[in-house]
Amino acid sequence: MSNRAESYLLGLIGEGVLPSLTPALHEREADRLGLRLLYRPIDLMELGLAPTAIGDLLQAASRLGFNGVNVTHPCKQLVVPFLDEMSDGARRLGAVNTVLIRQGRFIGHNTDYSGFGAAFAAGLPQAPVNRVVQLGAGGAGSAVAYAILGAGAQSLDLVDVDAARAADRAAELQQLFPDRTVTGRGLDELARLVPLADGLVNCTPMGMKEHPGASFDLEQLTRRHWVADIVYRPIETELVQFARGRGCRVLDGGRMAVGQAVDAFRLFTGAGPDADRMRTHFLDLIAREGSAPGHGAENRLSKVAS
Amino acid sequence: MSNRAESYLLGLIGEGVLPSLTPALHEREADRLGLRLLYRPIDLMELGLAPTAIGDLLQAASRLGFNGVNVTHPCKQLVVPFLDEMSDGARRLGAVNTVLIRQGRFIGHNTDYSGFGAAFAAGLPQAPVNRVVQLGAGGAGSAVAYAILGAGAQSLDLVDVDAARAADRAAELQQLFPDRTVTGRGLDELARLVPLADGLVNCTPMGMKEHPGASFDLEQLTRRHWVADIVYRPIETELVQFARGRGCRVLDGGRMAVGQAVDAFRLFTGAGPDADRMRTHFLDLIAREGSAPGHGAENRLSKVAS
Repeated sequence: MSNRAESYLLGLIGEGVLPSLTPALHEREADRLGLRLLYRPIDLMELGLAPTAIGDLLQAASRLGFNGVNVTHPCKQLVVPFLDEMSDGARRLGAVNTVLIRQGRFIGHNTDYSGFGAAFAAGLPQAPVNRVVQLGAGGAGSAVAYAILGAGAQSLDLVDVDAARAADRAAELQQLFPDRTVTGRGLDELARLVPLADGLVNCTPMGMKEHPGASFDLEQLTRRHWVADIVYRPIETELVQFARGRGCRVLDGGRMAVGQAVDAFRLFTGAGPDADRMRTHFLDLIAREGSAPGHGAENRLSKVAS
Repeated sequence: MSNRAESYLLGLIGEGVLPSLTPALHEREADRLGLRLLYRPIDLMELGLAPTAIGDLLQAASRLGFNGVNVTHPCKQLVVPFLDEMSDGARRLGAVNTVLIRQGRFIGHNTDYSGFGAAFAAGLPQAPVNRVVQLGAGGAGSAVAYAILGAGAQSLDLVDVDAARAADRAAELQQLFPDRTVTGRGLDELARLVPLADGLVNCTPMGMKEHPGASFDLEQLTRRHWVADIVYRPIETELVQFARGRGCRVLDGGRMAVGQAVDAFRLFTGAGPDADRMRTHFLDLIAREGSAPGHGAENRLSKVAS
């Protein structure tokens, strides 16, 4: 198509995506790189569409000249049957957040895990990962756990209020990383696990303005722990603040949000985005939000799930 | 939608639209005005879709965040049943080339006639229109005839190789302008009509590279005639060149092409485009095309029909 090589039409398909910062992140970075790029939020709830409409929406996006879409809750697994190709990571995870559209073909990637992995490597270099405790085994949690194992974790304790879900996810990950130890745990084991861990990752909604508090007893933190959060509204969660005060090395939730966008931008455009610049822009957007109303709890929740 | 107020996603739906200059015209003007705008050609033939798919494509465009689309051959009349509102001019013509998408509603306009009208007023100011001969009574011809009558023509001779078509169109226009004289004519009457006319308009494909020549005997032209063409590939048709040489006032085919884009841009964005700047850009694009291969006869033909 005549204009596709020179410009980029992108979208974000999911529920509650209107407050997402991803469109602005992509558009601003494209401006800095001199690329014409337009990124539209496509909200299933606003459109009155079921999550299963993802297949039709992909087809429509292809027809109308989209170069790709990000896919978020609740479509990351539903989208899989409509894809022509998948990256290795996306196939292993069974979840896709980035779809490239190339001559009518759909190619799925997962930049949630690759983005978290890149953020982890850049933000917590040489962090010890002999034993890691992760709280939350939902969709985002799966991608983060995959990245943590990809970063070399020898032992991963997956803790969830739903111990059965934790056990299921742990079993799946164990299959993918047979030489590691991945264990699903209930909340009752948490107090025993924290002192054994090199670092802790929060993949629950705890810490959001609507879910104040933290997902474990912060008093157990010592300065030898590193701490990562994926909640980014606010960017300084209770966990992040407390850990920083204790002298821990900390990765805030904005790192994963930016990391997934950096990797998606690279896939969409083939250009080299500036991750630090995107991070700065993200923090600017978050700060501006803080002084403006209009972001409901539902939206924040769905963003963390994404 | 969060980004829709600040940026513009547009498209052109029709057959053979890939070589259209309209996307580049809109995007360049938006750049100059500091607007984020992306304009996609959506080619029914490339997509293997029937012209009746226009309704589904409009719905898809609305869902995916398009702010509007231009519609061209062969969908300008087919699109009408899918619209929620129409401008007066579009309703009278029964043809739409511009659809605004506003909160899921479709509003039809016709900037072919308004664009030709504006171009005619700007490019041939005070041209006498007591009696006008128009060659070609197809879709583009209808819009041009409507504009010529709107510009005050007292008598319009519509000439077509298909005399019945000319008669039908003339009858429709006569109803819309009951105080004028609109007559359908066969080619056999042409030689008699030219000397009676103040000016002549070519709305046939004659003059394109693939259809060399002119639609009437140029030797009949005198310097008191004004001449308008809607063929713009090449911009200097045999008609335009000859008429200029005779000392006639001339409106080349680029004027209508730019005029429809200027009016559509204003409708899509609410901003005030610079018509002269868009004309300069158009001539630049046409000139560059001249030095590059790759524009087939089918595409040129469908462009004139649009």
